[in-house]
Amino acid sequence: MFTLNLDTSSKTPLYMQLYSYLREEIKSGNIKNGERLPSKRALSAHLKISMITVETAYAQLMAEGYITSKPGSGFYVECLSEEYIFDNKTQETEKAFDEPSEIIYDFRTNRVDTSVFPFSTWAKLSREVLSERSADLLNACPPQGILSLRVRIAEYLKEFRGMAVDPEQIVIGAGSEYLTGLIIQLLGRDNAYGVENPGYSKIYNIFSAHASRVFPIPMDEKGASADAISGFGINVLHVTPSHHFPLGIVMPVSRRLELLRWADFKEDRYIIEDDYDGEFRYAGRPIPTLQSMDVHEKVIYISTFTKSLAPSMRISYMVLPRSLCRRFTVRLGFYSCTVPVFEQLTLAKFMEKGHYDRHINRMKKIYRQRRDVLCKKISEGRLGDFVKVSGCDAGMHLLLTVENGMNQSELLSSAAREGVKVYGLSEYYSFPVSALQENTVVVGFSGLNTQQLIRGAEALERAWIR
Amino acid sequence: MFTLNLDTSSKTPLYMQLYSYLREEIKSGNIKNGERLPSKRALSAHLKISMITVETAYAQLMAEGYITSKPGSGFYVECLSEEYIFDNKTQETEKAFDEPSEIIYDFRTNRVDTSVFPFSTWAKLSREVLSERSADLLNACPPQGILSLRVRIAEYLKEFRGMAVDPEQIVIGAGSEYLTGLIIQLLGRDNAYGVENPGYSKIYNIFSAHASRVFPIPMDEKGASADAISGFGINVLHVTPSHHFPLGIVMPVSRRLELLRWADFKEDRYIIEDDYDGEFRYAGRPIPTLQSMDVHEKVIYISTFTKSLAPSMRISYMVLPRSLCRRFTVRLGFYSCTVPVFEQLTLAKFMEKGHYDRHINRMKKIYRQRRDVLCKKISEGRLGDFVKVSGCDAGMHLLLTVENGMNQSELLSSAAREGVKVYGLSEYYSFPVSALQENTVVVGFSGLNTQQLIRGAEALERAWIR
Repeated sequence: MFTLNLDTSSKTPLYMQLYSYLREEIKSGNIKNGERLPSKRALSAHLKISMITVETAYAQLMAEGYITSKPGSGFYVECLSEEYIFDNKTQETEKAFDEPSEIIYDFRTNRVDTSVFPFSTWAKLSREVLSERSADLLNACPPQGILSLRVRIAEYLKEFRGMAVDPEQIVIGAGSEYLTGLIIQLLGRDNAYGVENPGYSKIYNIFSAHASRVFPIPMDEKGASADAISGFGINVLHVTPSHHFPLGIVMPVSRRLELLRWADFKEDRYIIEDDYDGEFRYAGRPIPTLQSMDVHEKVIYISTFTKSLAPSMRISYMVLPRSLCRRFTVRLGFYSCTVPVFEQLTLAKFMEKGHYDRHINRMKKIYRQRRDVLCKKISEGRLGDFVKVSGCDAGMHLLLTVENGMNQSELLSSAAREGVKVYGLSEYYSFPVSALQENTVVVGFSGLNTQQLIRGAEALERAWIR
Repeated sequence: MFTLNLDTSSKTPLYMQLYSYLREEIKSGNIKNGERLPSKRALSAHLKISMITVETAYAQLMAEGYITSKPGSGFYVECLSEEYIFDNKTQETEKAFDEPSEIIYDFRTNRVDTSVFPFSTWAKLSREVLSERSADLLNACPPQGILSLRVRIAEYLKEFRGMAVDPEQIVIGAGSEYLTGLIIQLLGRDNAYGVENPGYSKIYNIFSAHASRVFPIPMDEKGASADAISGFGINVLHVTPSHHFPLGIVMPVSRRLELLRWADFKEDRYIIEDDYDGEFRYAGRPIPTLQSMDVHEKVIYISTFTKSLAPSMRISYMVLPRSLCRRFTVRLGFYSCTVPVFEQLTLAKFMEKGHYDRHINRMKKIYRQRRDVLCKKISEGRLGDFVKVSGCDAGMHLLLTVENGMNQSELLSSAAREGVKVYGLSEYYSFPVSALQENTVVVGFSGLNTQQLIRGAEALERAWIR
């Protein structure tokens, strides 16, 4: 058993001391890959600490991928430090690695709680596909993806998003990033592309890597506007109307109609509607997607299974207007579909049998609860007087605007000292605004459970109340 | 049981009549999806034809994906007509669909014989991955792919291609097409790219879709040359030195050194070495890859598992020179890896346990035998006097130059009348040469078994001897 001296007089909580100790032992190889950790009961008895303390430390190690639990058997070391990172490796993530190890509550925005994923069902369907469809698994698939999956996606869009889509309009690809690249190839490198500013930095990077003219578009309280676009000569606009990233704006119908009118005005104008977390809507009336309001074949709709299933499943899809379907076949029909047939068949089965709907409903419930817990803790707690919560009607993140006299850098560093990582809004600007003038932080709530959210919010109280 | 009237006096062979009948019944839905076909013995007795006739008809239906065989159980209808095509859907393939249904021997070049794939081993490893690595399957993976697979690939390249490669230099992606797009993003759209002419039309299309300056480079008998490149202002050259597509040239060492010297001459020059079928080399001394001869970090090497495993597995990789690794991380490190973790883990296991080496050796033996059978039948048979075979030292296709007074169109159409599809060399030129002046056809031998190859060659005798 381990020999560590827990310091009960330290400011660092016991579970954090235990977690740090175990993590270092795993990273250094003193606890070996595959080794079984002591049971929670045994370790709590040995160290004379509460079961809850051990449990919290183990939960954090699990969340970060250092250990896994095998039901009925115990906890085992999974030394993934070289092979894996914890989540989508964005620039954010790389930064996260350089930071002091004391970050306990990471309010990252792109985190998916995969612990709730019905993996045994997925594995069962995978096994069925392996045994039933062996011949198909070796054949190449049509460029747009296998028909049965496109049929399921069309059904899903009809039922849950009110969209009338023909499977022929759907193109399946290995992630929204890849599909965005395809769209640029489809529409042409020489267009002038507009992206939301602030926005998802990857989107700006993808456009920059493919096209020469990319313009970050300023936002008002309703999102991007036709006014804001004019003057740049933009003819293709990328937007996230269901839930803007990161501002959290749900674009009102009036603004949607305005953008559609803008697109209708010239033949070469298009709107790319990125519905990256459209499944998770908690408040207000559902607003139709731009795609379903579009009568002039001006909207290309993109959505992903990465947020709703797991980041490791690189499956996204786009819905092309009919006129662009023909162009796609002619110009890009030579590309093979980038998603393996195996994943496509398994996902088609998963959707067909209703597992996807159930999973989405379950995740929605979980994320809504997390959002509610966090909002309540902040609005009704000690932070309530000077912290404004916004952008939380949908999705997996919200914004906190903090009126305590601290600027963004101070908000981040004081939070870090309490073991909390939040993200400065200024980081999401393509042409950054000064962090000194900002006092808003972006807070993802999808990767932490309610207990962690409460403790994280408590840590923010310690950080921001002075 | 079926009621069809076989016409023994017809020019159409009996197995072809049976095959056509069954295919139409399946396509029309008269024989339903999932239905079990009569056993070969029962059907031969019922129709009073030989077992071989039934067997050949069934084999053709299987090869085309209409039916599958379940060992010990029989043959079942897999109505994949809408959902599947038989192979990589290239422009070639789409054409193939419009053609008369009498094509029995399709000498397509991009066919992989998946019937030899050790699927039960793959399925077993897949199941192991599903049960052992469930947590990993839901986590995202590093942008370059999981480390364990990159380690296996580096080992493989060392042992079989004599290449000293660090796993850090390897980037895994969903197909060579995708990786080629990434390379263009990495090096920049504004470069002048050179592609081999004739060549693989997809490559030309990918460069055209991403970059503004793409120049098809004429070839001599050794491949592309520094002389041929000069004048275009090209600074990035894409080549297939191991086995040129479609000419079949294995680039001699002298030419390889010449191209490397060309690349060394200026800082922004690079060579993309596409080793698409480098595993399958049958004759002559092994020639080192450009990558392994490169001392100035000028070669980007691409290879794929699509040809060596199955088209449905979209797994390719590239090896970057060290200097470009840093640039990759900075410029493109934001992209998520496009291959699911599941496939990567399964393939890593497959390689680790030696299955991949064994499979490659087996396929090499099979393809070599097919090449030998076809070459012998043509060179030593009735076509020998006026057909020259070339480009067959490696790969999965060869060239036939036919001196019987027919031009390319006549060669193709006379072959088609005998139920054979071969491909005109002129089709592979970006700036096509006239089909009227060409008398060379491209013949893939990887998708037909030896019996089919012999019958196909016999049909070519009937077509081309007049």
